[in-house]
Amino acid sequence: MIPVKTIEWVGDADGACRIIDQTLLPTELRYLDLTDSDAMWEAIRSLRVRGAPAIGIAAAFGVYLGVRAIGPEDDSVSFVAELERVTAHLATSRPTAVNLFWALERVNRIGMEVVASGGPAAARRALLAEAVGLIDEDNAACRALGAHGAALVADGDTILTHCNAGSLATAQWGTALAVVYMAAELGKRLSVYADETRPLLQGARLTAWELQQAGVPVTVITDSMAATVMAQGRVNAVIVGTDRVAANGDFANKIGTLGVAILAREFGIPLYVAAPLSSVDLNLASGAEIPIEERKPEEVSLGFGRRTAPEGVAIYNPAFDVTPARYVTAFITERGVVRAPFAEGLARVGNSPSSRARLVIPRESAGPIPRQGATDA
Amino acid sequence: MIPVKTIEWVGDADGACRIIDQTLLPTELRYLDLTDSDAMWEAIRSLRVRGAPAIGIAAAFGVYLGVRAIGPEDDSVSFVAELERVTAHLATSRPTAVNLFWALERVNRIGMEVVASGGPAAARRALLAEAVGLIDEDNAACRALGAHGAALVADGDTILTHCNAGSLATAQWGTALAVVYMAAELGKRLSVYADETRPLLQGARLTAWELQQAGVPVTVITDSMAATVMAQGRVNAVIVGTDRVAANGDFANKIGTLGVAILAREFGIPLYVAAPLSSVDLNLASGAEIPIEERKPEEVSLGFGRRTAPEGVAIYNPAFDVTPARYVTAFITERGVVRAPFAEGLARVGNSPSSRARLVIPRESAGPIPRQGATDA
Repeated sequence: MIPVKTIEWVGDADGACRIIDQTLLPTELRYLDLTDSDAMWEAIRSLRVRGAPAIGIAAAFGVYLGVRAIGPEDDSVSFVAELERVTAHLATSRPTAVNLFWALERVNRIGMEVVASGGPAAARRALLAEAVGLIDEDNAACRALGAHGAALVADGDTILTHCNAGSLATAQWGTALAVVYMAAELGKRLSVYADETRPLLQGARLTAWELQQAGVPVTVITDSMAATVMAQGRVNAVIVGTDRVAANGDFANKIGTLGVAILAREFGIPLYVAAPLSSVDLNLASGAEIPIEERKPEEVSLGFGRRTAPEGVAIYNPAFDVTPARYVTAFITERGVVRAPFAEGLARVGNSPSSRARLVIPRESAGPIPRQGATDA
Repeated sequence: MIPVKTIEWVGDADGACRIIDQTLLPTELRYLDLTDSDAMWEAIRSLRVRGAPAIGIAAAFGVYLGVRAIGPEDDSVSFVAELERVTAHLATSRPTAVNLFWALERVNRIGMEVVASGGPAAARRALLAEAVGLIDEDNAACRALGAHGAALVADGDTILTHCNAGSLATAQWGTALAVVYMAAELGKRLSVYADETRPLLQGARLTAWELQQAGVPVTVITDSMAATVMAQGRVNAVIVGTDRVAANGDFANKIGTLGVAILAREFGIPLYVAAPLSSVDLNLASGAEIPIEERKPEEVSLGFGRRTAPEGVAIYNPAFDVTPARYVTAFITERGVVRAPFAEGLARVGNSPSSRARLVIPRESAGPIPRQGATDA
């Protein structure tokens, strides 16, 4: 059971970042070879590549593509200016997933360090190597996370998931769905209910597609049917991904997760949050500090080529919600399963604040900006 | 604030039943003049006319259109046979809403009685008069229900509703939305969040359209956003309609209502169920006996005119869910507000079992059939 590769580098230093254009799934599998930073910004903004871990990797390649364009003969001052500009611009593509800022900060720092010691050519090489390295790290983290999660489920269990936290949200192995893939490697066969996940239907389009490709039994339901399948006793566990986890265990994920979490508790079903450490943001005390992206109303009223709400009607379209920690049974990370009290557990496995976003903030975001790291400004 | 007429009779005895084709809303307001029983069956089955009270009225006109076709020179035996055939066929159009069986039983009985005493011509006249009378009764019931409900809300309140229990679900005034319309007559201005209500989007297409037409502030959200607007403190009350209420207060309504009900309780928001007495089925001890219509998977995978789930994937598409009585704050009926204990309250205001479906059962339904009345077989 080898999931599809969502993002990879093809060719040498003059090559391209290849992504699946996820806006065309499930009817068309088309790969895009991106060769400049603006195209990467657009791909992230338009959700051609999406999912917190994949966005981080994509942004890292975007930085390389940006500084590659200024040419090998440029001086370090120009390189640094371009590195800063490209990094800041990519940070405006999506405001909620902390992985974006985490990855940008990481490659920005490497670029700065290497250009100071070795000049622009060495820095460009380092940036590409770092972005490629993020893929390897992501694969290792996802497989480790999945293995820890697989211990929480039994052969024959049925999982309900929301949105897509699968291979299409990462480089290859997924987070929530890594549990399914790794369970299969351990001989535990799981079935999945996929909430379709309005408005952009990542569950129906992406989760259903990748599980079908992998041979995992999957049933699509509308978001409004989750309560019914839970009430019917058909769900053994809910497993979702996350875009950002605060230090207290509150977490942001695709809109609708809060409702699923409340329903799971009502029906006595465990809620597991697949949270690679790159999504844990110990700088945020609670979920109240997580910025929530609000997207355009047409995603709701015109999402699939046909008008589904009257012209001119008001539409509210937050892309994420924040689920309080009290609804979480456990976080599944690549370093193990974290149960309550979450503040201690997350601090133990989480990254230190010094690895957090320092310079990079989403300047064009309408919402509150992520808090800057307090310790390394 | 005069809501749109959803169903009416136009012309004399040779006239037609005029309905709004709700499958074309919100982009096109088209009226259909139906002149035969099969066309009415198709209109109910295809949800051109929908909503429990409107379905009952439509079915009554369908019976008249059916027996009108056999001609004035036919004898009483042929009339009775055709009346039985048409009634039984119309009962197969939708399985969940009890109003359908209630109305069919009522007009069937009148047809039987009048044909015995006055012959086919008199019976036809009586059937048309009865169907037209159902509209007047519906208008009176909806306005009374709305007035009782209006006492439960305050000027400036915001209501969240699911699906469409508005004028488009009745002859003209709605059930859940009658509360909004009647509150306005009393000087209380309400705002509404309309869940879009997948898969068929009755909230986005119909509730938003009729409230916009009536000048009521309405904001469309996806079903998955209900938890968020509740968590943000934006909702003062949830008001929904129902297709069938069991004697213990369990009720069936559009899929997704169960989830909304659980969320409302979690956030301390009252849940009111607008239940005209024609939807109260005292023959059913609990919601476990309510048959749930399962509709075709394409409503989920092809609902927006574009494929949104992979070819061949499993889809589960129940059209309704059953919400246990414990989540209900009160039922709003045309005879007043019923609070717990519901069994006593519903029995007090409800119709007697003798008015319930006697002969008419949905013979083509895949699900369990409604229980026959036990007292008058």
